Amino acid sequence: MKKHWLKPPDWSWNSFSDENPTSVSQWIESLQSFQETPDLIVYGTPISRSSISVSGASLYPSEFRRMWKSFSTYNIDEHVDLISFKVADAGDIDMHTTDILLSHQRIQQTTAYLTKRYPTSRTCMIGGDHSTTACAVRGIKEMYPSETIGILQLDTHLDVRDPRILGPANGTPIRQLIDDNTVMGKHIMNIGPHGYFNAKSLIDYAKEHSINIITLKAARKKGVLQAVKESLQHLSNCVDRIYVTVDMDVLDISFAPGVPASTPGGMSTSELFDSLIEIGKDPSVKHIDFVCLDPSKDSSVQETVKIGCYAWLQYVTGCVLQDKK
Amino acid sequence: MKKHWLKPPDWSWNSFSDENPTSVSQWIESLQSFQETPDLIVYGTPISRSSISVSGASLYPSEFRRMWKSFSTYNIDEHVDLISFKVADAGDIDMHTTDILLSHQRIQQTTAYLTKRYPTSRTCMIGGDHSTTACAVRGIKEMYPSETIGILQLDTHLDVRDPRILGPANGTPIRQLIDDNTVMGKHIMNIGPHGYFNAKSLIDYAKEHSINIITLKAARKKGVLQAVKESLQHLSNCVDRIYVTVDMDVLDISFAPGVPASTPGGMSTSELFDSLIEIGKDPSVKHIDFVCLDPSKDSSVQETVKIGCYAWLQYVTGCVLQDKK
Amino acid sequence: MKKHWLKPPDWSWNSFSDENPTSVSQWIESLQSFQETPDLIVYGTPISRSSISVSGASLYPSEFRRMWKSFSTYNIDEHVDLISFKVADAGDIDMHTTDILLSHQRIQQTTAYLTKRYPTSRTCMIGGDHSTTACAVRGIKEMYPSETIGILQLDTHLDVRDPRILGPANGTPIRQLIDDNTVMGKHIMNIGPHGYFNAKSLIDYAKEHSINIITLKAARKKGVLQAVKESLQHLSNCVDRIYVTVDMDVLDISFAPGVPASTPGGMSTSELFDSLIEIGKDPSVKHIDFVCLDPSKDSSVQETVKIGCYAWLQYVTGCVLQDKK
Amino acid sequence: MKKHWLKPPDWSWNSFSDENPTSVSQWIESLQSFQETPDLIVYGTPISRSSISVSGASLYPSEFRRMWKSFSTYNIDEHVDLISFKVADAGDIDMHTTDILLSHQRIQQTTAYLTKRYPTSRTCMIGGDHSTTACAVRGIKEMYPSETIGILQLDTHLDVRDPRILGPANGTPIRQLIDDNTVMGKHIMNIGPHGYFNAKSLIDYAKEHSINIITLKAARKKGVLQAVKESLQHLSNCVDRIYVTVDMDVLDISFAPGVPASTPGGMSTSELFDSLIEIGKDPSVKHIDFVCLDPSKDSSVQETVKIGCYAWLQYVTGCVLQDKK
Amino acid sequence: MKKHWLKPPDWSWNSFSDENPTSVSQWIESLQSFQETPDLIVYGTPISRSSISVSGASLYPSEFRRMWKSFSTYNIDEHVDLISFKVADAGDIDMHTTDILLSHQRIQQTTAYLTKRYPTSRTCMIGGDHSTTACAVRGIKEMYPSETIGILQLDTHLDVRDPRILGPANGTPIRQLIDDNTVMGKHIMNIGPHGYFNAKSLIDYAKEHSINIITLKAARKKGVLQAVKESLQHLSNCVDRIYVTVDMDVLDISFAPGVPASTPGGMSTSELFDSLIEIGKDPSVKHIDFVCLDPSKDSSVQETVKIGCYAWLQYVTGCVLQDKK
Amino acid sequence: MKKHWLKPPDWSWNSFSDENPTSVSQWIESLQSFQETPDLIVYGTPISRSSISVSGASLYPSEFRRMWKSFSTYNIDEHVDLISFKVADAGDIDMHTTDILLSHQRIQQTTAYLTKRYPTSRTCMIGGDHSTTACAVRGIKEMYPSETIGILQLDTHLDVRDPRILGPANGTPIRQLIDDNTVMGKHIMNIGPHGYFNAKSLIDYAKEHSINIITLKAARKKGVLQAVKESLQHLSNCVDRIYVTVDMDVLDISFAPGVPASTPGGMSTSELFDSLIEIGKDPSVKHIDFVCLDPSKDSSVQETVKIGCYAWLQYVTGCVLQDKK
Repeated sequence: MKKHWLKPPDWSWNSFSDENPTSVSQWIESLQSFQETPDLIVYGTPISRSSISVSGASLYPSEFRRMWKSFSTYNIDEHVDLISFKVADAGDIDMHTTDILLSHQRIQQTTAYLTKRYPTSRTCMIGGDHSTTACAVRGIKEMYPSETIGILQLDTHLDVRDPRILGPANGTPIRQLIDDNTVMGKHIMNIGPHGYFNAKSLIDYAKEHSINIITLKAARKKGVLQAVKESLQHLSNCVDRIYVTVDMDVLDISFAPGVPASTPGGMSTSELFDSLIEIGKDPSVKHIDFVCLDPSKDSSVQETVKIGCYAWLQYVTGCVLQDKK
Repeated sequence: MKKHWLKPPDWSWNSFSDENPTSVSQWIESLQSFQETPDLIVYGTPISRSSISVSGASLYPSEFRRMWKSFSTYNIDEHVDLISFKVADAGDIDMHTTDILLSHQRIQQTTAYLTKRYPTSRTCMIGGDHSTTACAVRGIKEMYPSETIGILQLDTHLDVRDPRILGPANGTPIRQLIDDNTVMGKHIMNIGPHGYFNAKSLIDYAKEHSINIITLKAARKKGVLQAVKESLQHLSNCVDRIYVTVDMDVLDISFAPGVPASTPGGMSTSELFDSLIEIGKDPSVKHIDFVCLDPSKDSSVQETVKIGCYAWLQYVTGCVLQDKK
Repeated sequence: MKKHWLKPPDWSWNSFSDENPTSVSQWIESLQSFQETPDLIVYGTPISRSSISVSGASLYPSEFRRMWKSFSTYNIDEHVDLISFKVADAGDIDMHTTDILLSHQRIQQTTAYLTKRYPTSRTCMIGGDHSTTACAVRGIKEMYPSETIGILQLDTHLDVRDPRILGPANGTPIRQLIDDNTVMGKHIMNIGPHGYFNAKSLIDYAKEHSINIITLKAARKKGVLQAVKESLQHLSNCVDRIYVTVDMDVLDISFAPGVPASTPGGMSTSELFDSLIEIGKDPSVKHIDFVCLDPSKDSSVQETVKIGCYAWLQYVTGCVLQDKK
Repeated sequence: MKKHWLKPPDWSWNSFSDENPTSVSQWIESLQSFQETPDLIVYGTPISRSSISVSGASLYPSEFRRMWKSFSTYNIDEHVDLISFKVADAGDIDMHTTDILLSHQRIQQTTAYLTKRYPTSRTCMIGGDHSTTACAVRGIKEMYPSETIGILQLDTHLDVRDPRILGPANGTPIRQLIDDNTVMGKHIMNIGPHGYFNAKSLIDYAKEHSINIITLKAARKKGVLQAVKESLQHLSNCVDRIYVTVDMDVLDISFAPGVPASTPGGMSTSELFDSLIEIGKDPSVKHIDFVCLDPSKDSSVQETVKIGCYAWLQYVTGCVLQDKK
Repeated sequence: MKKHWLKPPDWSWNSFSDENPTSVSQWIESLQSFQETPDLIVYGTPISRSSISVSGASLYPSEFRRMWKSFSTYNIDEHVDLISFKVADAGDIDMHTTDILLSHQRIQQTTAYLTKRYPTSRTCMIGGDHSTTACAVRGIKEMYPSETIGILQLDTHLDVRDPRILGPANGTPIRQLIDDNTVMGKHIMNIGPHGYFNAKSLIDYAKEHSINIITLKAARKKGVLQAVKESLQHLSNCVDRIYVTVDMDVLDISFAPGVPASTPGGMSTSELFDSLIEIGKDPSVKHIDFVCLDPSKDSSVQETVKIGCYAWLQYVTGCVLQDKK
Repeated sequence: MKKHWLKPPDWSWNSFSDENPTSVSQWIESLQSFQETPDLIVYGTPISRSSISVSGASLYPSEFRRMWKSFSTYNIDEHVDLISFKVADAGDIDMHTTDILLSHQRIQQTTAYLTKRYPTSRTCMIGGDHSTTACAVRGIKEMYPSETIGILQLDTHLDVRDPRILGPANGTPIRQLIDDNTVMGKHIMNIGPHGYFNAKSLIDYAKEHSINIITLKAARKKGVLQAVKESLQHLSNCVDRIYVTVDMDVLDISFAPGVPASTPGGMSTSELFDSLIEIGKDPSVKHIDFVCLDPSKDSSVQETVKIGCYAWLQYVTGCVLQDKK
């Protein structure tokens, strides 16, 4: 008979759990302990003091990881077990307490480093606010200066506000990338704008720079999934690699209380989840990020963090389906 | 005797904001400062002590206005800038602290005044609870005694409870208007009733008075938008002017936590938003109200107030599209 | 003139209410006071200490009853008044404070008793957590040992975790029933599994035992309603009586904050509500339960309890429509 | 062995509960079923549409009663069992849905009726907002026109706002009673005003009419309990009967989130609880009320309703101690 | 210059944190990794399905540990650094999912094991609900059968409800220990009962068995700290070792929203904090537990969990002050 | 170059209100419209992206002003009407969206400007997080280079963390001022540190620089008010002007849910309120600030914002009492 029933102290949320025998938290390993080349590298950018409004999106990377234990690795809809797909967690990039420019530089450098060190691995950045996207794309461009990069953006907003006024804040990343010639406007497809959340002057900027805006109403006419397919197809034809940025505020506010900028009239979770499988299946997509989810604003049942984790797994499922083919 | 009871609008929140260069709050002006005839006059009726259950709907007019700064004037789905459409804010009607009948009288008189003084302007009343609709319609009838008025009601309830028992409470406005011959039952189209929220006796009353009930299930068979179109068409054929009343409890409770009487199985925001553009486009619609939204019950991210503001802008978009034609 | 205006003290939530003249609370009577054979017997099993995670589902039976007064007996969509359908409330089964096995035994014995004493009445159990389903089905089997029982399960999970490890916890009822030969795996239709919420090993168990899994994605291809119809048809063909178990976690988390195990990507209330009418219409369905709704986690407007009550009334509406035919 | 384990349905919150063998809910009986003269009559006045700000204080009487089951009849601090003290619950006064004056009249008439019918019983009114106090005191004066009535008021506010402007709203009851000569200003002792919550003009009115204001700071110099003792002593010397009105907003906001008008710097629960025993012990105190507690604003653990029930029991304990002497 | 800025993934909440250079989380080590004999062993008993009402106290041990990082090891009031005091975390006892008796047995066995294996170390059990106290005390008695054990209980309740009716539920531990002769009633000092939360019959039981009840009112007459001192003195004189059990419901509800059974009129945090230093200073106190704190009911700022952690550190501070002498 | 960065105050919420005839919102005027020299100038510094943890303290200045309408100008405890004391609202300093150093510079320059332009006026800064204090004090020093400045700090923390690591974050202001010789450590009196919220190394720094730490325990031995008096007396004797900084986290967490860094065991509101009158009465105190109150974390009844406004009015009351003498 056992002498006592002590389990070692739960020094981590990531311990084995009888309750979910093959949970996501048991599947993913740290990049540091990885023996082989990972299929996908996840890394966090816990910064949101660059946000125009108060945001706790800096808290998302750790909440995202804590949610892993509530998800199994098996997708029952697609009959796919993710377990053979190799995901490495590279940890979070160390953000400075007050120096935003320095933090942004570190995101750029670290993304460059990962892209160079693991050239065959996909990368997935977990924000943080949307300012981080500009840094990540610049880091990739730094490594692949001769490649053209296309962006598929799922977003309620255009994010082309003026960095000369705001600095590199979360409303500006797309404009930053256009203004410094990292990405061309015509290589940006933004699916999701709707309603009354973009000023006329910003739409004018987008038009001048040939950004492709697919409003939610337009997307729904053919189906959001179809719109995503066509956008990926279009980008594949004219760029070398696709970066996907998912601003979680693309979701309707009724699904996403934990995204301060989410609005009525937005995308449903079904539309987003289906789109992410499609995105994962596209071999041109090398990089993705999920930004602007603020766990401190989430409902008490953490609905939005669960959606964020589910959305990410849909992308992974898509990758697995792609590799299967 | 005072001709009307308008207080100047509470412009407070309406300062310039860099963050949304052409926000709704910058576009709308007070009626007092208006030089020309407005296309639409907005006025608030902050009363809800006439509500059967405890309600803070009296707080909605000011929260509605405070929300303006989060909306741009540009509708990206319809490619329409509202900025040339002239909306005047007439402020709130001064409600008495305890004398409900007096407050109701003031709503009637003020609506009559506005309708008379600005005969070519549309009016939009922001409630307050649903008791205010009876007052507003009576005020219009007072000005146009020879016209027949039709009502398009979006509502989960029939609102034909007995004012002889309840007084002029929020469950009674439609019955008040029928019983005093302001409107005929057959000129009322109610889209939205569903489920188990109307007693048999009230349905019997509605049938006796030929109120047209289009249940949500029936509406969805053809599409809610189509049901709205047909209802407007039908009313246009038999009345002189249409009054639209939007009881926000028509929305499903998962969208509208801030409407105490909202229920499961209700309308989606998409269905409501599409309908309101259609309503705005109909030249027979001269008057509209939005009632029963209680900001004190709303979620912490003010989801319902945002929906209320969005819904109102959809109606305005419809007006602009109508005028464009 | 009246001398005073006292109403007798409100010793019960079930008093007459002017505000909803023919409410569900006025229609339902206690089984003890019933003169004739009821069409449907409702009974509560307020236990959730058998739940793997902390759950307050034991609080649901009483909150369910308190919600009755907010619902009318008339279904306006189906033009059906439930009032002639005889529903008896048998009360709650007395649960022991700490002896879970004893409580489970009482559920089995009491279900057996009700099934024997009222052989022509349908039964509806209001949980409590999902562990109660195994007890109820065993109680029925005890009374009808020679009948084959089929189960239609609406659930995000398979609930086939191993009772040898967990004891008779809420993740295990389906496996309990298969392992002790009460029900055969092939007589179980589970509609609703989706996403990443069932471990691979559990899916393997289900396949070995020929449980029919209809994922939400598969169901939606033909329509959830159609999937339910076909499942009922299939079961009717091969079993003597159908037991329906509705784990409320089948609902999407955006509808059901008050179900701790609800997830993103789940069923909509429309899909559930339509399905329940169909279930009620099927004469082979003799028993139903609703489990895992935890009122202590619900939103402040009690959205989930309202949905639970609505769902149950949809089932009753189905029964009435069946009897009408 | 038992055949089944059904308890009769819980048609009332007031059923026997193993968990609190001699709970307050088991002790109190309805006035209608009372055989002898009660020592204390409790009655509810569920009205708060007379409140200046939105208030759900109308919900308090029923929440107050529902809380009874969480309290035992035994006061362990005072070694007193309340069970032999005869408390009758007369129920709630039927309030009209929209006619505030009529509702107020009913409060006056019913209080008069109770006072006449049970001349030796103490009365305790459970509000409702503070407007009800004026009605109750007038009802008592109606029965005892030749007696002088004194008021001990525990309140943050003076409640002497002008009823000519506001009507009989919740900020006006003390002024109503002075202006119609029901009570003299000098027979009013108000303990609790503090801070910045009474306009200068109202303080001037109070001074003109010789209302005795004992600020919280002044009371604490000698101890709140001592201040209450001296006030009761003073009133006993100059009036025939004392009416005590406890506006729950006298409590500090950190204790009383469920009282919308509570403020920082208010009374502690200890101070209030000790005072109420003293009040109960005074034979001149024949009437008491507790007003302005809004359960819909309370914290999720119902802290304020619990305090309200505790406070009331302290008063009852005081009565028992008085009778013991 | 650094190549990248990745920190290893935060696989544990217990990582180094710049923000609190010498936090409690950095100081405490796991028992498994301990080289020397610890001064104090902490272990968790995550069980609350033995609770009469729904309780999430099983979640406390892990939340307690997660809170460590917000506390420094230095007590500035007492000028004491805890860092040289050796605290080992033994982890949580593995609780069975549904077998309460088995879980209780494991607590007893494990406490016996720890007490035997580390005879000179103090033990501190982190509950879980109050049923665990009976198990722990029995485990100690098992090791020291010839010693008399005294209990100092800080509690609003007597916890002497009848286990023959309830089983070993959270309202019964003290009675269990008396009925099976583990502890004598006269060796129990209960400080904290107040108000209306103990039935007469339970008080009678306590008197029959000579349990020493020091009501909060009585304690405050001399000061709670003094009452604790005298109780410890009294126990020291007549028992061999003292077990202290802190039911967090002893705290006033305004401090402790996260303790479902907390009530108005309870102990302040100051009184509790001061008492715990005194308890830590007493060499006869060998064992302590903290029970009944339910993090799932806590306020959004986790006030109660913070208080729980502070309280425990006060006890540790007391131990250090004792050892210093 | 701009001389200062003031935007006009947001007067929005400040309309006439019948409900509080002489409210604080009616009394205070904008600095821009002031004819004479104000007695006190209030200005806001809406910045909290300099905070180590996520903070919405930037939202406080506007919430603070919106709360004015709930307060009267008359202090009933002190029998003082504030209305003759001239308070000017200078509005908020325009903070840059992402450039923290620039924002800090603007606070310094603007404080210098106000101090120079209105040399006889007291100033009161409304934060914002605690990083702003270093800027304000430097601005004053800039104007009065030859004066020695003393600081009375009410705070749970020492705020002497290392700016070389963190930059000018909210944990560093006191150290910044010492390290750049703006203020000497011995001229700083910190009342309020308690418990386990300051690392040993920070206490060592404080001791090395002779900062005077008066722990809450020490302060309470003589009374917090007396400790404040003595500290002011001590500072008056050795400095030319006193700057008081009130970090609202000095308050106990049970009072101040809206201050993320508040802790158990902190100051009561009574202690703070009494202290602020004393501070206002001291002629050496020329400057005060209130920082770190985050309205987005506040309870739903805005308890903490109310406390913040009350605290500020206590300071003003003290000023009036001083001037009266």
